[in-house]
Amino acid sequence: MRESSYPLVTVEDALAVILRQVAPLPPELTLLHDALNRVLAEDVHAPAAQPPFPAALVDGFALRSADGDAPRRLIGEQMAGYMAGIEVAPGTAVRITTGAPIPSGADAVVKVEQADEVDGRVAPHPDQGLRPGLGIRPLGSDVQAGERVLAAGQVLGPAELGMLASLGLAAAPVHARPVVGVFSTGDELAQPDQPLGPGQIYDSNRPTLWAAVAQAGGQPLDLGIIRDRPGELEQKLAAGLAVADLLVTSGGVSMGELDLLKPLLERWGVVHFGRVLMKPGKPMTFAALPVRSADGAIDPARPARPIFALPGNPVSSLVTFQLFVRPAIRRSLGHQAAGLPQINAVLGHEFRLDPERPEFHRVTLRREGGRFVAVSTGSQASSRLLSASGANGLLALEQAAGVLPAGVERPVLLLDDVWLSGDGKSCKV
Amino acid sequence: MRESSYPLVTVEDALAVILRQVAPLPPELTLLHDALNRVLAEDVHAPAAQPPFPAALVDGFALRSADGDAPRRLIGEQMAGYMAGIEVAPGTAVRITTGAPIPSGADAVVKVEQADEVDGRVAPHPDQGLRPGLGIRPLGSDVQAGERVLAAGQVLGPAELGMLASLGLAAAPVHARPVVGVFSTGDELAQPDQPLGPGQIYDSNRPTLWAAVAQAGGQPLDLGIIRDRPGELEQKLAAGLAVADLLVTSGGVSMGELDLLKPLLERWGVVHFGRVLMKPGKPMTFAALPVRSADGAIDPARPARPIFALPGNPVSSLVTFQLFVRPAIRRSLGHQAAGLPQINAVLGHEFRLDPERPEFHRVTLRREGGRFVAVSTGSQASSRLLSASGANGLLALEQAAGVLPAGVERPVLLLDDVWLSGDGKSCKV
Repeated sequence: MRESSYPLVTVEDALAVILRQVAPLPPELTLLHDALNRVLAEDVHAPAAQPPFPAALVDGFALRSADGDAPRRLIGEQMAGYMAGIEVAPGTAVRITTGAPIPSGADAVVKVEQADEVDGRVAPHPDQGLRPGLGIRPLGSDVQAGERVLAAGQVLGPAELGMLASLGLAAAPVHARPVVGVFSTGDELAQPDQPLGPGQIYDSNRPTLWAAVAQAGGQPLDLGIIRDRPGELEQKLAAGLAVADLLVTSGGVSMGELDLLKPLLERWGVVHFGRVLMKPGKPMTFAALPVRSADGAIDPARPARPIFALPGNPVSSLVTFQLFVRPAIRRSLGHQAAGLPQINAVLGHEFRLDPERPEFHRVTLRREGGRFVAVSTGSQASSRLLSASGANGLLALEQAAGVLPAGVERPVLLLDDVWLSGDGKSCKV
Repeated sequence: MRESSYPLVTVEDALAVILRQVAPLPPELTLLHDALNRVLAEDVHAPAAQPPFPAALVDGFALRSADGDAPRRLIGEQMAGYMAGIEVAPGTAVRITTGAPIPSGADAVVKVEQADEVDGRVAPHPDQGLRPGLGIRPLGSDVQAGERVLAAGQVLGPAELGMLASLGLAAAPVHARPVVGVFSTGDELAQPDQPLGPGQIYDSNRPTLWAAVAQAGGQPLDLGIIRDRPGELEQKLAAGLAVADLLVTSGGVSMGELDLLKPLLERWGVVHFGRVLMKPGKPMTFAALPVRSADGAIDPARPARPIFALPGNPVSSLVTFQLFVRPAIRRSLGHQAAGLPQINAVLGHEFRLDPERPEFHRVTLRREGGRFVAVSTGSQASSRLLSASGANGLLALEQAAGVLPAGVERPVLLLDDVWLSGDGKSCKV
């Protein structure tokens, strides 16, 4: 009888070990079109003031406020995009459009709706508080020259990208996206759209993990299936190390005869842990492998590559991905919040506990009043992807005997947007 | 003096009008690699049972339960991926790995850790409840043949894509992604990385809206800047109609001399509304334009294209995008929850109300105990993108005089993941 030689580590310790091994990738200057959801690696300061000139806030008439309500002679027009070169002398006004620069001499803009234009003369309505600065967006009123407009660590959404564009920037320094190589292992795995041979199953882990990498913000790289043939594991792993920042495998980590992966990881690098006290996902293994050149020598210039050897069962591999690989990818991307967000939810029914391991139970959360209620997705067999399909949370159940009754509160790790379970359609004010 | 001829519609009515004009796009069979976050257009049924054969749940020994704890002769091994063709007669056992098919004659699998193997014989430990079915995943126990495994309308995340892959499918019928053409309008707009001329500003709306389209799941198409030159608006709009499912413009919809867009929309199609009672974003206009062939004739085979003419101010264009265009994109994609999710939040400080319009105030939400607290991002000038940068919500303030005190609750539309404002790192059980 063989026992695994790896001590069981807690989920918390395992995550801490992983995050110590992974650092944000170096910055790369990236076109704004490719920078959505990326993380700024450096502060950004405004090279110039915004707006770069005093500008009309409204469509109307640029004039001198000291002239009061008296009618003025219209002497020209100033549209956006150029300087018409008109001087607004006392008793005159210039037609102006929103965003256009204020002509010399004018100190206010009266809205088109708040003035009467008759026979080439324009008279502001009284009682609109005509004063210097009315209807004018002063130079630098949105952003001052040199002001820090975005900080390192900020995630670039539409507004932030627009902010960068408004400064005239076409690219931004963001942390590089990690290339995450995804393998499956096993002779039983068949390719899609092919008939199954006896004892074969379709490989679902690669498509699952490929999508999970993309969802986490990494660049997934499909490295195929590693068959149980002599030398194939070594060869494909070495090829993966050469091209990927992180490697993810599934299968080949439990105690079968053909589980060659762990011994290889020990020979080639450092196995940080080889078992985790959790259900599902106990055989989850994390190692760091140095990058080697063609002659087998370690390349000292390149940092060791983290490798996540996930269990082969579909649910186990997805749960361990979300708990351990996703944080590593997000840390590489420069995100400050690396792990899954956590909320408290009320149990919608009784849950049986496992006396041997803490369990991450797939649940659907629904909003009920001001709280969330967690309902199981059904049988939690680790082969049963249906239990993960439609789940938006992982309910964290403690290791204990017995059952938890409906109504008690427990933490839930969020896998998906929980708000969309509402109708999300109303925006009545 | 001119008044806009368009009646003011409420935000709610405007959204209802838009959603009546937009239907989910037709299904297209899409490779799983490209189907992340897409919406299933049809139910998916399992073509075969899962697993397709009774399989070992663990690494161990396949044997006959009726033999009890007595030692058995080891007669071979059955790995995953093929049928070894061994018959397990009484008194014999077969070494087996997880996922491998159960050999004929065996009705249980004993874990490797729960048996003693000596001299080619294996004896199960007593008290492990050896019985028919132990350690076996029966045929069809995860999914039965013909079972509906995914329903039309489900969003394809990693687990759902894995489910499809486990059925042997390489592609899925999902609603097509709308191509969303994005224009800016205005002579004052400069391209990035070029020095600004007098009166010019950089175009921030196209990068902002481009990213917002991508974030909403659409395929953004950059259609450039429409200059204030005769014929250019007509020419570029016609070109956009030919290639895009939806069009989004910004600028050219308020009351300036050069605001030619609304009259053109009236000539070419139906303007559904031209003003919305909201701040910012009042000039927001929504129309539907028929697609025309080169000779100007309406193409009756192609549905009219929705066009969103957003205000030119950066914040106004982004807020109206999120309130009106995002739901249209999500409806096209087949999402059931089209609009922004809405929660209630407590005001973190006093907010001044606008007596003339309901306001969507950019806020940052932070978690405090079980509730969310909304804090303004500062000056809400509609030119000031800094007020949208870092905002994760739009606080919906009613049209009224006076101020709302800190502590009262108001609805907030969510722009971004609010959970990430927590540290999101803990997953202690």
